[in-house]
Amino acid sequence: MALKNGREYQQSIEDLALEAHVMGQAESHLTRHPLVRPSLAAVAVTYDGAHAEDAATRDLFRAHSPLCGEEVNRFTHLHRSTDDLVKKVKMQRYCGLATGCCFQRCVGMDAANAVFSTTYDCDAACGTDYHARFKTYWSGIQEKDLVVDGAMTDPKGDRGRRPKDQRDPDLFLRVVERRRDGVVVCGAKLHQTGMLNAHEMLVMPTMGMKAGEEDWAICFAVPTNTPGIRYIYGRQTSDTRKLETPALDAGNPRFGGQEVMTVFDRVFVPRERIFLDGELPYSGRLVERFAAYHRQSYGGCKVGVGDVLIGATALIARMNGVAQASHIKDKLVEMIHLNETLFASGIACSAMGHPTPAGNFEIDMLLANVCKLNVTRFPFELARLATDIAGGLLGTMPSAHDLEDPVAGPYIKKYLAAAEDTDPVDRIKVLRLIENLVAGSGAVAYLIESMHGAGPPMAQRIMIGRQGGLEEKMARVKRLLDVA
Amino acid sequence: MALKNGREYQQSIEDLALEAHVMGQAESHLTRHPLVRPSLAAVAVTYDGAHAEDAATRDLFRAHSPLCGEEVNRFTHLHRSTDDLVKKVKMQRYCGLATGCCFQRCVGMDAANAVFSTTYDCDAACGTDYHARFKTYWSGIQEKDLVVDGAMTDPKGDRGRRPKDQRDPDLFLRVVERRRDGVVVCGAKLHQTGMLNAHEMLVMPTMGMKAGEEDWAICFAVPTNTPGIRYIYGRQTSDTRKLETPALDAGNPRFGGQEVMTVFDRVFVPRERIFLDGELPYSGRLVERFAAYHRQSYGGCKVGVGDVLIGATALIARMNGVAQASHIKDKLVEMIHLNETLFASGIACSAMGHPTPAGNFEIDMLLANVCKLNVTRFPFELARLATDIAGGLLGTMPSAHDLEDPVAGPYIKKYLAAAEDTDPVDRIKVLRLIENLVAGSGAVAYLIESMHGAGPPMAQRIMIGRQGGLEEKMARVKRLLDVA
Amino acid sequence: MALKNGREYQQSIEDLALEAHVMGQAESHLTRHPLVRPSLAAVAVTYDGAHAEDAATRDLFRAHSPLCGEEVNRFTHLHRSTDDLVKKVKMQRYCGLATGCCFQRCVGMDAANAVFSTTYDCDAACGTDYHARFKTYWSGIQEKDLVVDGAMTDPKGDRGRRPKDQRDPDLFLRVVERRRDGVVVCGAKLHQTGMLNAHEMLVMPTMGMKAGEEDWAICFAVPTNTPGIRYIYGRQTSDTRKLETPALDAGNPRFGGQEVMTVFDRVFVPRERIFLDGELPYSGRLVERFAAYHRQSYGGCKVGVGDVLIGATALIARMNGVAQASHIKDKLVEMIHLNETLFASGIACSAMGHPTPAGNFEIDMLLANVCKLNVTRFPFELARLATDIAGGLLGTMPSAHDLEDPVAGPYIKKYLAAAEDTDPVDRIKVLRLIENLVAGSGAVAYLIESMHGAGPPMAQRIMIGRQGGLEEKMARVKRLLDVA
Amino acid sequence: MALKNGREYQQSIEDLALEAHVMGQAESHLTRHPLVRPSLAAVAVTYDGAHAEDAATRDLFRAHSPLCGEEVNRFTHLHRSTDDLVKKVKMQRYCGLATGCCFQRCVGMDAANAVFSTTYDCDAACGTDYHARFKTYWSGIQEKDLVVDGAMTDPKGDRGRRPKDQRDPDLFLRVVERRRDGVVVCGAKLHQTGMLNAHEMLVMPTMGMKAGEEDWAICFAVPTNTPGIRYIYGRQTSDTRKLETPALDAGNPRFGGQEVMTVFDRVFVPRERIFLDGELPYSGRLVERFAAYHRQSYGGCKVGVGDVLIGATALIARMNGVAQASHIKDKLVEMIHLNETLFASGIACSAMGHPTPAGNFEIDMLLANVCKLNVTRFPFELARLATDIAGGLLGTMPSAHDLEDPVAGPYIKKYLAAAEDTDPVDRIKVLRLIENLVAGSGAVAYLIESMHGAGPPMAQRIMIGRQGGLEEKMARVKRLLDVA
Repeated sequence: MALKNGREYQQSIEDLALEAHVMGQAESHLTRHPLVRPSLAAVAVTYDGAHAEDAATRDLFRAHSPLCGEEVNRFTHLHRSTDDLVKKVKMQRYCGLATGCCFQRCVGMDAANAVFSTTYDCDAACGTDYHARFKTYWSGIQEKDLVVDGAMTDPKGDRGRRPKDQRDPDLFLRVVERRRDGVVVCGAKLHQTGMLNAHEMLVMPTMGMKAGEEDWAICFAVPTNTPGIRYIYGRQTSDTRKLETPALDAGNPRFGGQEVMTVFDRVFVPRERIFLDGELPYSGRLVERFAAYHRQSYGGCKVGVGDVLIGATALIARMNGVAQASHIKDKLVEMIHLNETLFASGIACSAMGHPTPAGNFEIDMLLANVCKLNVTRFPFELARLATDIAGGLLGTMPSAHDLEDPVAGPYIKKYLAAAEDTDPVDRIKVLRLIENLVAGSGAVAYLIESMHGAGPPMAQRIMIGRQGGLEEKMARVKRLLDVA
Repeated sequence: MALKNGREYQQSIEDLALEAHVMGQAESHLTRHPLVRPSLAAVAVTYDGAHAEDAATRDLFRAHSPLCGEEVNRFTHLHRSTDDLVKKVKMQRYCGLATGCCFQRCVGMDAANAVFSTTYDCDAACGTDYHARFKTYWSGIQEKDLVVDGAMTDPKGDRGRRPKDQRDPDLFLRVVERRRDGVVVCGAKLHQTGMLNAHEMLVMPTMGMKAGEEDWAICFAVPTNTPGIRYIYGRQTSDTRKLETPALDAGNPRFGGQEVMTVFDRVFVPRERIFLDGELPYSGRLVERFAAYHRQSYGGCKVGVGDVLIGATALIARMNGVAQASHIKDKLVEMIHLNETLFASGIACSAMGHPTPAGNFEIDMLLANVCKLNVTRFPFELARLATDIAGGLLGTMPSAHDLEDPVAGPYIKKYLAAAEDTDPVDRIKVLRLIENLVAGSGAVAYLIESMHGAGPPMAQRIMIGRQGGLEEKMARVKRLLDVA
Repeated sequence: MALKNGREYQQSIEDLALEAHVMGQAESHLTRHPLVRPSLAAVAVTYDGAHAEDAATRDLFRAHSPLCGEEVNRFTHLHRSTDDLVKKVKMQRYCGLATGCCFQRCVGMDAANAVFSTTYDCDAACGTDYHARFKTYWSGIQEKDLVVDGAMTDPKGDRGRRPKDQRDPDLFLRVVERRRDGVVVCGAKLHQTGMLNAHEMLVMPTMGMKAGEEDWAICFAVPTNTPGIRYIYGRQTSDTRKLETPALDAGNPRFGGQEVMTVFDRVFVPRERIFLDGELPYSGRLVERFAAYHRQSYGGCKVGVGDVLIGATALIARMNGVAQASHIKDKLVEMIHLNETLFASGIACSAMGHPTPAGNFEIDMLLANVCKLNVTRFPFELARLATDIAGGLLGTMPSAHDLEDPVAGPYIKKYLAAAEDTDPVDRIKVLRLIENLVAGSGAVAYLIESMHGAGPPMAQRIMIGRQGGLEEKMARVKRLLDVA
Repeated sequence: MALKNGREYQQSIEDLALEAHVMGQAESHLTRHPLVRPSLAAVAVTYDGAHAEDAATRDLFRAHSPLCGEEVNRFTHLHRSTDDLVKKVKMQRYCGLATGCCFQRCVGMDAANAVFSTTYDCDAACGTDYHARFKTYWSGIQEKDLVVDGAMTDPKGDRGRRPKDQRDPDLFLRVVERRRDGVVVCGAKLHQTGMLNAHEMLVMPTMGMKAGEEDWAICFAVPTNTPGIRYIYGRQTSDTRKLETPALDAGNPRFGGQEVMTVFDRVFVPRERIFLDGELPYSGRLVERFAAYHRQSYGGCKVGVGDVLIGATALIARMNGVAQASHIKDKLVEMIHLNETLFASGIACSAMGHPTPAGNFEIDMLLANVCKLNVTRFPFELARLATDIAGGLLGTMPSAHDLEDPVAGPYIKKYLAAAEDTDPVDRIKVLRLIENLVAGSGAVAYLIESMHGAGPPMAQRIMIGRQGGLEEKMARVKRLLDVA
């Protein structure tokens, strides 16, 4: 077994020959599609990291796994210590900084750690054998060094109704037929980040199911090229700039994200790939654990993208000739402060982690939710401050097409000249990168996903309320005041 | 004389036969260009308002002008009272709500009021005759009911250097030749909102000029189709969605904004159209006054666009079936609160206005700057709250092209169904409108322009510091404390 | 008739010979009590303002009243125009700046304007004669230029229960006996600002009453020295510093606030002083109107106190030798900006006011609530910024007693010396004033009352939700999108 | 050797027979003085913690010290690992929650760790022997389990001038005479938290000294009862409530803080107690390190006090009968979220710590500054939210003296009754505790010290700017964009 590098990974995805609907076309050469390619390149960074020249970086991306008995890419690792949890966050920050976008591979890592401990608990209570099945399955993932997409979010239909009470029962993914050797499912998963860059998907319920909803309490894994699965590509703001030549206006020249609506139209799942089927209490527990791991993740990846935004903003300030203005310096300090506060939450929930009965490590639940709630706020303020420093050109700059025009081009270069040693085209590049993150395709991951990924703010608030220890605090105050 | 309606206005612009570089092409039929048309339609609303069916609306859009002795469109009015100033803000809110975007006609109105009083002051001090020239000029504008673009922002080059010290002296627009009958100018104006939907432009210096910078202290008006002027169209995030069929993904189906880089390559300006030429102190005064009027404007227009965002957000909450959740209601209240706080600043600086020596009315300078500083903050929080309520689909929804695909379309409609009486396509429309405002082409006006239009936040802070009465407050405290 | 001055006013209060429980003592010479005297002096400023030397100030404090046919102190005025409403706010800012505290006389003015229009509406609908009674009553108040305390807030007991369902029915003030010539009431009013500096009190229900709660729907006026009324003085943080000699540590050397728990133990109210008695719908309307007027008031008075805090903060920065540091200047700008945003809300709800059927003017209800909601936020941030600039001495400075000690005093003066021309004792005075406002007795009015006076933030949010025009905004968006 | 308990500690302080000026009196029985006693009791908690019944708590308060070869109280420990650093923060949170105030013993612990590593560096570079001296000194502290106050903040005089350029050179503490066996110093240290509850003080320079300022670059330790040292007690808002009977109005019935102005009037320091004397570069390094350790500390202690405020706020909500209102629950969640974000910063800078060349562990400098900058913000918002939930009584409640009055008392109890099972006096206790923290004597530590302790926000911003890695971020962005 060998840890893949980025090139090998890209080939392995090409070999899957996945198909998808993209902007009204059924596309079958996705890995060469200009809308898709940048997102594949971003995932490839998670492979190349394990082969980085410097040992410190390699150490972030590699871990020894007792499960398969070998060194694995950390993105497939089941965390064994708080040190593992801390390294996970640092690795994510590294990838965010390297790509300036969502690199998509965290979801599967977070799902695996949640399924690992939840199946253990379920087996102990219900006498099922999901944990052994999952260990076999995941050991194979580690050995082949695959990308697994964790798939959780159902369409949900009318939010005021339970799954079983929807007009269309498929609005939550469910078992529609049971066979001796497996089950058949129908439904869809929305917002699937990086799905078409994955080899496998690990499907989980979207919330805790209640009595009468056993068919919806299903967790399983299938290859992404399983018959009956349909993919419809999600749009991002300014996405088609990736199709333009010259490519400058895309902002991020090499990397990007991917969101896919994934439909299951009578998909067969073999028995050995089922990890939960009707054990109601474990549906909710699985959701909570996955969510907490993923809320931790945002304390790494978004911080890395924040680093890119801060760097670009500092660069444009210098190019504009205002880097020494005290209010500019102060705004950059504020950006760093907010970004590091996010990082602190990611690190803290990791350092305060604890082992599960199954043996892998779990983050501190309260602090992981605190981390994510900060992620629903601070990137927006970072984007606002970047918009402030970058200047109005962010919204009014001519297109790169005109840059090459013999009449318009020279005017643009003449009038976008700024600080003495700055090439106007370099200045445009930096501005387009900032635009990409605050109001372009990068904003989908940096702002919208920061709000909704791993659950919207209200989901975190509910968990914080539950885990905040209010009763104990009241008891302590009563004692201090000698109040009954 | 008659007040034009929207249709007549659009024809009058078509008659100008303006040309521009747009996305690498030299275009000469701009009014039919799908990137331009929505912006023209938005300006047309400022004309149709004067012909609204209800008297109250007409009253907002019409005013009696002593200058030309007739009833004029308020967008060409020189304000005669605080009531006029208040009505201006209400009219702008009306237009913002009607279009959901920037309707572009405020800049000229604000420039005219600033030039009117500044030329008066200049003449009184310097014995020039600019005020009479300007009255003649503006009377014609009122009679013909024209759109005038106010053009202020120079490219500025290295922000650490004065105009006269730039490597390229054209980085601030300047007089390069003086003739008996006028002057020849070179330079550029960036971020020109709606320039190609204007009949005329009123060019002003971008800051207070100092000794040795007389050639840069120039204010004048020229028709937009004057020889030597070149236009290069500015890009907006997701702009090319306006070129797509179906058009649904554009978000705002009818209206949009426009930003134009405007280059002056040896443009001749006849003597009677020059309103300032080298009188240094009046360059700064003009900038300050224009800025203050325009900062007031944002207390109207952005509030109207905020109304659209709030309405769309409330609508999507209802469609998602969560309109009754207490945290949703509370977030909508917060959005209204912030939006009305902006409005309050716009109204307050108007109600506290005062007459100038020239006879028109000026807003309260301190409160106008306070108004704009709030505009650099609250729309960003409104956008964040809208992103929260709208849900993750904002960043992951499939394209409208797939909606019509026989395979993908039915899946999309099946899985984007929500509250019982909601058509999934209507739901998509509302989400695309929100996307337009928080991360699409509408965000250029609603967020980026809110930050930088009429000057960035630091410009307002400087004015607030100057006008905040700190010395008097200290004196009062000393008296209270009996401190020397 | 003559407008009283401050001295005459103070004598008139002394003549009432009010009694109260103060810090465990039954006190009967209140006007000479050092805890009370500063609050009386603050009210006196509202009288002296009408006799100010400069005409502009007098104009703020005086208005012609058609009710009594004479010029009255504006604090007793029924507003006749939006200009009146704007002047009210300016007058309040003036008083706040003059005293640096709550000057207590607004409540009655706001109550009178609410009772005036509500009794008119009630009479029109119910055939009662409350409006005539109130006009007679209030005409006398104007003629005698009296202070009337508006008394609204009941104790409320268990907030989860209606008035009629409380274990103790007196927890909301109510009629306990009806006689031919009047009624007898029991109950209490909490948080009565300035009650012991008032000649009269105007008692209102604390919320809209419902069927079965007719006895609680009572509005009336009585003199403050009416038998059966008991007063218990409220504590303020650091209040007893006013009892110390030297007085320096009190912070505000001349003025202060006053809060009084007011108990009604079988108090008789004659018929002609009753202005509502059981007409349920008008209880809620009265509360809403009074609250709105009072929420407007905070856009004036708290801004004036904010001016004092800003002035003191600028002064201490100068004394510390840091006035030119860019971050200090920027924080002062932020303080001014927030303070003026409050003012803008106060002015805007006034300028957008409208006449009531009764003939007096009412503020814009939505904007008045927006104003108050800002008041529950910005003073806290102003206090935080003042704490930042003032420095740690704010919390660690030795007492004024030690300043006079022959051993300690010289050390204090030696080591609290700062910028060259600053007397250390002056520096202490300024720091004690800031302490007074951010964490001393002044903080009761500037922070706690800003939060809860005229209702806590949730009360404003409910009104904003109701008045924010959400349905119309949604309708406009539907039209824009062509959505059914 | 034995770890002292609280009682033994209090006796040991009494044995020192310290004297101070308190409110104009020279006091010599400080430990029995009602203004001082609560602060002594708070420090005693740091001793009793080491004798807690449960092993987990004892483990927080005890550590094995290689320096003295024994188990020591962690407050005297030189941290040996990141685990030690994390435990330090948890211990501080424990003490904050137990006391609801500042327990004063952190300063010495933070100073010792900074002096330990800085003397090591200084010796290595300059050939001095400070490190050995300090080890001997500190080993004795550990063995005797003493409280050492770290003393850093000089009066500073005119902030615009260097120490050597002040009119009075004593405004920064300095050596005024050099003798064979030691030095004589003059000056003062302001804001000395808990100084009169300490056995020893460790004096450090207040900032990095420059050439010509060698006499100000002095670090040493002396017993608190050294001749020539004078103490002047600092006032706190509402401090004299601690002198009242009944004591209820003090808010925190058992614990409190202490701030002391400490004057050095020709104090002799023996040679072996000098740890820096003129080695300029190490003065700045010492300040930076001490500050960073102390900024970490605030991520523990203020979080514990925050727990008390949250608990009290939840309790008053329950007593008021509003605990189930959704907006109340949401505000409590916000309080918990902010408080845990502080904790996360404290934990993160600890978990990311590293060994120094001297062998003890240092926190991550960047994150420690981020932690403290959050401390200058979030407690203020927690206080604001507590003020919101607590209700207006916070500022208007009658005094405890009236509670015992035969006339007033029954009225107060009748009208302050709230939810069914709530004793009105208990309700008053909870409100007085909240008042103590948001606007009473507890606010000195919870708000003012949160702002200024370990340096004001600007000090943290400077460090964040320096350590934020801006250059590297820019380099990474350039690489991503292929920009030169």
